[in-house]
Amino acid sequence: MKILEDRKINDGQIGKGNVLKVDSFLNHQIDTGFISELGKEFYRLFKGENITKILTIEASGIGVACLTAQYFNVPVVFAKKAPTVNIYADIYTAKVNSFTHKKEYEIYVSKQFINKDDNILIIDDFLAKGSALSALISLINDAGAKTVGAGIVIEKAFQEGGKIIRDMNVRVESLARIKEMSEEKGVVFCS
Amino acid sequence: MKILEDRKINDGQIGKGNVLKVDSFLNHQIDTGFISELGKEFYRLFKGENITKILTIEASGIGVACLTAQYFNVPVVFAKKAPTVNIYADIYTAKVNSFTHKKEYEIYVSKQFINKDDNILIIDDFLAKGSALSALISLINDAGAKTVGAGIVIEKAFQEGGKIIRDMNVRVESLARIKEMSEEKGVVFCS
Repeated sequence: MKILEDRKINDGQIGKGNVLKVDSFLNHQIDTGFISELGKEFYRLFKGENITKILTIEASGIGVACLTAQYFNVPVVFAKKAPTVNIYADIYTAKVNSFTHKKEYEIYVSKQFINKDDNILIIDDFLAKGSALSALISLINDAGAKTVGAGIVIEKAFQEGGKIIRDMNVRVESLARIKEMSEEKGVVFCS
Repeated sequence: MKILEDRKINDGQIGKGNVLKVDSFLNHQIDTGFISELGKEFYRLFKGENITKILTIEASGIGVACLTAQYFNVPVVFAKKAPTVNIYADIYTAKVNSFTHKKEYEIYVSKQFINKDDNILIIDDFLAKGSALSALISLINDAGAKTVGAGIVIEKAFQEGGKIIRDMNVRVESLARIKEMSEEKGVVFCS
């Protein structure tokens, strides 16, 4: 999506250790007007799919998910994180490996909020190694619901997550796909 | 706010240990259409105040904050939580006592996202003992910005937070104020 590439992700946004700094509009400060434009684009891409619910993961997915959900007129469910989740009968759980934070954690969703009739669109801010997205898909599968697709703001296409998820026959739509990035070369997008 | 009292907070929503269950629309599943109506009400209450930014705290404040920010056409900043925050020069920090989770944690905001010219509206889902709200006000004070007020979805008026914050001369607008609640009596609102 050109406005995302032009206005928000640029060479000045690469910090130390090749971390993309999107704190100013996406995951600390949220530029709600701009993110709402991204939500409109997700709606254009998935509006024919009879979406009944949007699923995301706390915390930085929630803003994008809510601002997208308004176009679909559906609720958002956000998976919660916990270091360990006791085995309750009324939740679905899945494991996530966070490479950024170098730890494993569990996510969970209450069973009452996903059911077998749901057509679910997953929305998240980043796709890199795909661990969080795989975990969300696993929750949906456990509920017997359908994963219609995943709407991602920024995909680090130089990492394997996109391929892993697409190989599961899940439609992935990323608004910006980064081919490579470094302090020297800046941000290079997939053409 | 009558629609909140009538449609969403009712006697069936009191769980074990007198916990108000608002998972179905506010802090696990987010009923985005309904929450957007609450956002409109916050806008009606604070629109004359020249708000430049909305501040909230992860995770369950983010949805309400984003859906409110659209009416004001301002960005949202959400304070992040961490068990301990190293002393960085570029963040403001404050301590929060969570009575629900029986632990103390720190919240932080990057200095670049609050500055002395900001007129800040705080938005949060709950006000009970007031610890999170006090911490957010402290971050705003540290930045030399102005706290215009706090918009709260549900205030547990039988706890002391509302009085503490109002005694600091901060305007608090709660859309529902609960006077008392129990499995026996149900939910009783302040008149």
